Amino acid sequence: MDFSSFLTSLGTSFVIFTVFMLLFAWLSTRQGNAVVYYPNRIVKGLEPWEGGSKTRKPFAWISEALSSTEQDVIHMSGVDTAVYFVFLSTVLGIFVLSGVVLLPVLLPIAATDGVKNAHSTSNGTFNDLDKLSMANIQERSPRLWAFLVATYWVSVVTYFLSWKAYKHVSTLRATALKSDEVKPEQFAVLVRDLPDVAPGQSRKQQVDTYFKSIYSHTFYRSMVVTNNKEVDKIWGELEGFKKKLLRAEAIYEESERKGQGTKPTHKTGFLGFCGKKVDSIEYYNEKIKELTQKLEAEQKLTLREKQQGSALVFFTSKLTAASAAQSLHAQMVDNWTVTEAPEPRQLIWSNLTIKFYGRIRRQYAVYFVVFLTIIFYLIPITFISALTTLENLRKVLPFLKPVVDVVALKTVLEAYLPQLALIIFLALLPKLLLFLSKTEGIPSGSHVIRAASGKYFYFIVFNVFIGVTIGGTLFSALKTIEKKPNSIFEILAKSLPGNATFFITFVALKFFVGYGLELSRIVPLIIYHVKRNYLCKTEAELKEAWFPGDISYATRVPNDMLIVTIVLCYSVIAPVIIPFGVLYFALGWLVLRNQALKVYVPAYESYGRMWPHMHTRILGSLLLYQATMLGYFGVSKFYYTPILIPLPILSLLFFFICRKKFYGAFCHTALEVANQELKETPHMDQIFKSFIPPSLNSEKLEDEQFEDSLSQVSRSESSV
Amino acid sequence: MDFSSFLTSLGTSFVIFTVFMLLFAWLSTRQGNAVVYYPNRIVKGLEPWEGGSKTRKPFAWISEALSSTEQDVIHMSGVDTAVYFVFLSTVLGIFVLSGVVLLPVLLPIAATDGVKNAHSTSNGTFNDLDKLSMANIQERSPRLWAFLVATYWVSVVTYFLSWKAYKHVSTLRATALKSDEVKPEQFAVLVRDLPDVAPGQSRKQQVDTYFKSIYSHTFYRSMVVTNNKEVDKIWGELEGFKKKLLRAEAIYEESERKGQGTKPTHKTGFLGFCGKKVDSIEYYNEKIKELTQKLEAEQKLTLREKQQGSALVFFTSKLTAASAAQSLHAQMVDNWTVTEAPEPRQLIWSNLTIKFYGRIRRQYAVYFVVFLTIIFYLIPITFISALTTLENLRKVLPFLKPVVDVVALKTVLEAYLPQLALIIFLALLPKLLLFLSKTEGIPSGSHVIRAASGKYFYFIVFNVFIGVTIGGTLFSALKTIEKKPNSIFEILAKSLPGNATFFITFVALKFFVGYGLELSRIVPLIIYHVKRNYLCKTEAELKEAWFPGDISYATRVPNDMLIVTIVLCYSVIAPVIIPFGVLYFALGWLVLRNQALKVYVPAYESYGRMWPHMHTRILGSLLLYQATMLGYFGVSKFYYTPILIPLPILSLLFFFICRKKFYGAFCHTALEVANQELKETPHMDQIFKSFIPPSLNSEKLEDEQFEDSLSQVSRSESSV
Repeated sequence: MDFSSFLTSLGTSFVIFTVFMLLFAWLSTRQGNAVVYYPNRIVKGLEPWEGGSKTRKPFAWISEALSSTEQDVIHMSGVDTAVYFVFLSTVLGIFVLSGVVLLPVLLPIAATDGVKNAHSTSNGTFNDLDKLSMANIQERSPRLWAFLVATYWVSVVTYFLSWKAYKHVSTLRATALKSDEVKPEQFAVLVRDLPDVAPGQSRKQQVDTYFKSIYSHTFYRSMVVTNNKEVDKIWGELEGFKKKLLRAEAIYEESERKGQGTKPTHKTGFLGFCGKKVDSIEYYNEKIKELTQKLEAEQKLTLREKQQGSALVFFTSKLTAASAAQSLHAQMVDNWTVTEAPEPRQLIWSNLTIKFYGRIRRQYAVYFVVFLTIIFYLIPITFISALTTLENLRKVLPFLKPVVDVVALKTVLEAYLPQLALIIFLALLPKLLLFLSKTEGIPSGSHVIRAASGKYFYFIVFNVFIGVTIGGTLFSALKTIEKKPNSIFEILAKSLPGNATFFITFVALKFFVGYGLELSRIVPLIIYHVKRNYLCKTEAELKEAWFPGDISYATRVPNDMLIVTIVLCYSVIAPVIIPFGVLYFALGWLVLRNQALKVYVPAYESYGRMWPHMHTRILGSLLLYQATMLGYFGVSKFYYTPILIPLPILSLLFFFICRKKFYGAFCHTALEVANQELKETPHMDQIFKSFIPPSLNSEKLEDEQFEDSLSQVSRSESSV
Repeated sequence: MDFSSFLTSLGTSFVIFTVFMLLFAWLSTRQGNAVVYYPNRIVKGLEPWEGGSKTRKPFAWISEALSSTEQDVIHMSGVDTAVYFVFLSTVLGIFVLSGVVLLPVLLPIAATDGVKNAHSTSNGTFNDLDKLSMANIQERSPRLWAFLVATYWVSVVTYFLSWKAYKHVSTLRATALKSDEVKPEQFAVLVRDLPDVAPGQSRKQQVDTYFKSIYSHTFYRSMVVTNNKEVDKIWGELEGFKKKLLRAEAIYEESERKGQGTKPTHKTGFLGFCGKKVDSIEYYNEKIKELTQKLEAEQKLTLREKQQGSALVFFTSKLTAASAAQSLHAQMVDNWTVTEAPEPRQLIWSNLTIKFYGRIRRQYAVYFVVFLTIIFYLIPITFISALTTLENLRKVLPFLKPVVDVVALKTVLEAYLPQLALIIFLALLPKLLLFLSKTEGIPSGSHVIRAASGKYFYFIVFNVFIGVTIGGTLFSALKTIEKKPNSIFEILAKSLPGNATFFITFVALKFFVGYGLELSRIVPLIIYHVKRNYLCKTEAELKEAWFPGDISYATRVPNDMLIVTIVLCYSVIAPVIIPFGVLYFALGWLVLRNQALKVYVPAYESYGRMWPHMHTRILGSLLLYQATMLGYFGVSKFYYTPILIPLPILSLLFFFICRKKFYGAFCHTALEVANQELKETPHMDQIFKSFIPPSLNSEKLEDEQFEDSLSQVSRSESSV
C-alpha cells in the first residue's frame, strides 16, 4: 500500500462517514422515522424529542450526547450501559494521555534518525510512515531509551486510569444495588442441586423445611423449578396462533373497509403452499381454543409431575437473600448450592436443572471446543478457499466447465469465493459462541453474554491480530516456537512493523464506516419501512419491526477490545496509530451515547458485572503489548531491554490486587449494600409472581392452585 | 551396600526396637513414671490405667490401642487426632491393597527375566534385590505390560481410598461442629481491616453500629483488639517473679523442715552471677507488688489508647456467626474483612492487627523466602562442609595444626564435622518455618502449623528425596534440565533404582528406631527424672517437667508424607519396598494410638482442617510417582508408555473434583451444620470473657470497666 492509496482509503472512509452523518441528520428529524431513531424514548413513554419536530436542529444530537450525564444514561439505559461508557472513556483517556506524551517526543526522535537495515513498516513500499516509527531507529541506538521510557509511560497510564475506573464502577454498582426501589431478584436466591427427596415428602416440603429451619424469621416461600419444555412449546404455538388470528382479523377489517369483505383464507399444509383451504379466522379460533385447553392440562401436569431438583427461594429481607447467596449451606458443596437469583427476565429456565457435576463437565467440554475453534478456525476456511478455487472446481465438477470459463464470471468468482466463505464463517461465530456459552449451564442471560464475549475476544485477538500479523509465515513460525517457546513474542515483534499501515486503515475503516452505519441505522430503517409497507398488519407486528434490541455487548466489547489491543501494541512502535485509536473511542463514545439514550432498549440489568471482564481484558492486552515490546527491543539489540522485565510482573501484580480488592463485590452483594431501607414494604406476592415463567402464568391457575400443585399435598399442610 | 550389610542394618534396627519396646513395657508399669507415660489421662483427671498397677500386663497397651474406637480418640484427643489416624489408615490401606496385587504378580515376573544392561538397584554391588525389581526386565519386553497395569492399579487404589477418607473426614468434621456443647469460637467472628474511625466516634461505637445495623437480632457485643506488646511483657515478667517466689518459698520451707531455716538469697545481676545479694522472698514480693501496679496501669492504658483496627464480634447465635464469616460485608473487599474466629487458645493476638495488603505482602515475601530456602538450603551446608574439612581448617587456622594432626581426633572430626553442620541446619528448619508461617500474619495457631507443615513437605521432598536420588549428579542434571525442561522425570527415573536399598533402609530405620523412641519416651523420661530430682521445687514446676505437649503435626505429617512419596515412587519399580511402607504405617498407627490416648495433650482443635492439606499432598506424591513412572517406562523404551499419559491428568481431575466437592466445608462452617440446637442456652458473658487474653484479664478490671475503657465513652452510651 503506498501513501496515496493509504490517503485514498482514509478519505473514502471519511466521505462515507460524512454521508452517513448527513443522512442521519436528515432522516432522524422526519416524524415517520421516530420509531427507528428514538425507540428507547418511545418504549419509556417519552416524546421522541423535546419540543416539536419543527424546532429540531440537525446536529442537536451531538450537544445532547455531550451534555448528558452518567445519571441520564443510568436512568435511560441502566448501569450496564453506564459501565460500558466508563470502559470507552477509560480507554480514550489511556490513549489521549499516551498520545500527548508519545507523539511530540517519539515522532521527532524517530524521524531524525536514519537506518539502512530497518524492518519496514509497510513492506518497503511506503516510506513516509516508516520514518515516523521505531523501525527508523538504528540498532543499539541510545535513542531507544526514549521508546523504553514510553513503554513504561503507557503502562503506568493504563494502571492509573483502569484503577480509577474500577473504583468508580464499584461505586456505581453499590449505588444501584442500594437503590430503595424493590427489585424482585434481590429478595430471591436460586437453589440448585437439591438432594433426593425423602419418601412421602414433596420437593416443596423439602425446600420449605430446610430454609424455614435456617431462616425462620425471613423465609417467605419457595418455587420449585419445573421442566417446562413441553409447556413452553404449547405456549409458543398458542401465542403464534393468537398473532396470526390478530393478523387475519386486521386483513379482514381492511378488506371490509375497502368494501370487499373477503374473509382471509390459507392452506393448512407445508408453509401454506398445499393442503386444505380454510377460513383463517375460524381456523385460528379453533386452534386457539384447542391449544388453550391443552396448555391448561399441560400446566397442571408440569407443576405436579415435572418438578426438578432446583428451586427459587424468596425471603422477606434483601439482607437475608444477599447473605444466603454467599453462604455454604450443606456440608457437601454439591448439595443445596445457593446463588443469587438473576432477574426474572434473564433467567434461563432450562439451565436451572443441570446438576453440579453436569455444569462442571459442560464447562470443560465447552472450553475445549472453544479452544479447538480458536486454534483451528482458519483451517476449514483455508480448506474451503482452496477447494473453491476455479481450477479445483473444474476438476471436481467437470460439468461446471462451460460456466467457469466465461471470463467475466471467472473474475468475480475468483475474487469473492474465498471471502464469501470467510464472511459466512465469521458471521456464524457469535451465534456459535452464544450457543456454546448457554450450553455451559449458566443460569442467567447476562452471564451467557459475558461468557460469549470473553470467548470472542480470545478468538479475535488470536485470529485477527496475531493471525494477520504473522500471517502467511504462521506455520514456519509455529515450528520455531516449538523449539523455543518464548520466541513467539520475538516473531510477533518482527512482523508487527510490516503491518502498521494495514491496521491503521483497519481502525479508520472500523470507526468511519462502522459508526456511520451505527448512527444512521440505514439497515434497520430500510427493514422497518419494508415491513411496515408490505408485511405488518397489526400493532404488535409493527412494534416488532422497529424494536431495536440491546447494545449487544457480546460482539461489541470484543471488537472494541481488538482495537485496544492493536493500538496498545503499536503505540510505541508506530505512535501515529494513537490518534486513530483516540478517534475510534471518541467517536464511539459520542455515537453510542446517542444510541444508548435514544435507540437501544436494555434486555437485562446486571449492575455492572461486565466490568471485571473488561478490566481483565484491558490488562490482557497490556500484557500482550509488554511482551511484544520486550521482543521488539530484543530484536533491536538494545542492551537495556531487561529493564522492561518488571513490567509484565507489575501488570500481573496489578491484576491480582484489583481482583482482591474489587472483584468480591461484583460476585456477591456486600451486606452493607444490601442493608438499605426500602421506600415501601415489598409486595412479596408480586415478587413471587414475577418469577413465574409466562408459559406457566395463567389467570385460571389461581395462586393457591399453583402453590397447591407444587406442593402435591393438602393445602393445610403446605400453607406457609 | 551388599546384602549382608543390608540385613545387618535391618537386624540392628529391629533389635533396637525390641529393646525400646521391652523398656517401655517395664518402665510404663512403674508408678513413678505414670506422669511420663499417661499424662493425657492425668490431665483429664483419669486414673493412669484402669485397675491398679499390679494387674497391668506389660503388653496391654497393644490390645488397648487396637480395641480403641475413633470415638475414644475424639474424646481423648480431639477431631484433629482422629483425622491424623484416618490419614495413617488411608495410607496403610493404599499400601496394603497395592502390595496384595503387586508383590505376588510383579516379583515373579521380574525374577524370571534376565537383563544385561540393567540399571542396577544398588549400584552393582547388591544383586539379590536387583532381581526382584523392574531393573531386571529387558528393554521393550512385553513383561512391562504387567508393570504398566500395576502403575494404574496403585493410582486407582489411591483415588478410591482417599475419596472415601475425604468423605469420612467431612462427616467427622460436621459431627463435631454439630455438637450441642457450647464452643466460644462458634459464636464469634474476627473482623479485620476496619476503616478509619469517624471523628468523635470510638472504635467500639464504630464496630457496634455497623454490626448492630446488619445483625439487629443476634448481635451481642464486640471486643476491640488492642496492641498488647507492652502489657504482655509486663505480665510475663510478673508471672516469672510469681513462679520464682513460689520456688523460693518452697526452698525455704524445705530448709526449715531440715531444721536449718536459711532464707534463700540470690544476686540481682547478670544471670545471678554478680550484683547485690538479696533475700529472694523479700525481693520477689517487692517486685511482684511493683509489677502488679505497673500491669494495672498498663492494662488501663492498653484498653484505652492502644486500640487497633480489628475486633472480635460476638453473636447470640451460631448460625449468624457462621453466616457472617462467609459473607462479604463491605463493597471494598479490603474493608471489614470478616472471618471465622479461631479458638481463644490458638488466637495469635499480635497478628490480628495486620492490614489486608500487609498480609498479602507478607505472604508473598514469605513464599519467596521459603522458595529460596528450599532451593538453596544445601548450599550453605555444602559450603560449611567444605570449609570444615581438616585440610582447609589447617590452612585457614594454622594454630590448630597440632590438634588436627592427632590421628584419633582427626578421624572423629573428619567423620562428624559435616554431619554436625547438617544436623544443626536441619534441626533449625522447623522452627524457621514456623516462624516464617507466623510472620505471614495468620491469625490462628493451627493454621500456622498447617502452613509450616506444607512448607516442610516441599522442603523434605525436594531436598531429601530428589536430592538423595539425583545426588551428586545434581548439577550436571540441572544443565540437562535447562535444555529440556521435562527431562527431570527421566533423570529421576534413571537415578531411582540405584537408591532403592538406601531408601528401604531409611524407611526401616525410621519406623524401628523412630517409633521405638516415640513409644518408650526415653528422652522425656530422663529429662523428667533429672528435673524432678535436681531442679523442680514446686508443683507447677513439676507439671511443666512432665507436660507432654501435642503430637506436633508440623514435622510429623511431612515426615510421614516423605515415606508416602518414597514408597509410592518405588512401589512399581521395586515392589519389595511396599512391605516396609506397610510396616511403617501399621506400627505408626499402633504406637501413636497409644500416644494419642495416653500421652499427648492436644494444643488446639481445628475440626480436621489439616485433612485437605494431607489429601493434597498425598495426591502430589501420586503425581510425582506417575511422572516418574512415565520417565521410567520411557527409559525402558517401552512402546506403549503413552498409555500412562492419562494418569497425571486423571490425578489433577480427581484433585479438582475433591476440592470442589469437599473443600468448601473445610473453609467455612456449612449453615445446616451450624443450625443445631444447643444443650443449654449459651452464657454469652462467659463466651466473651474466654477471649480476653490472660495479660488483660485482671480481677480488678471489672467487666464493666473493661467495656468502659474499650468504648472510651460514658457507660450509658456504650451499654449494649
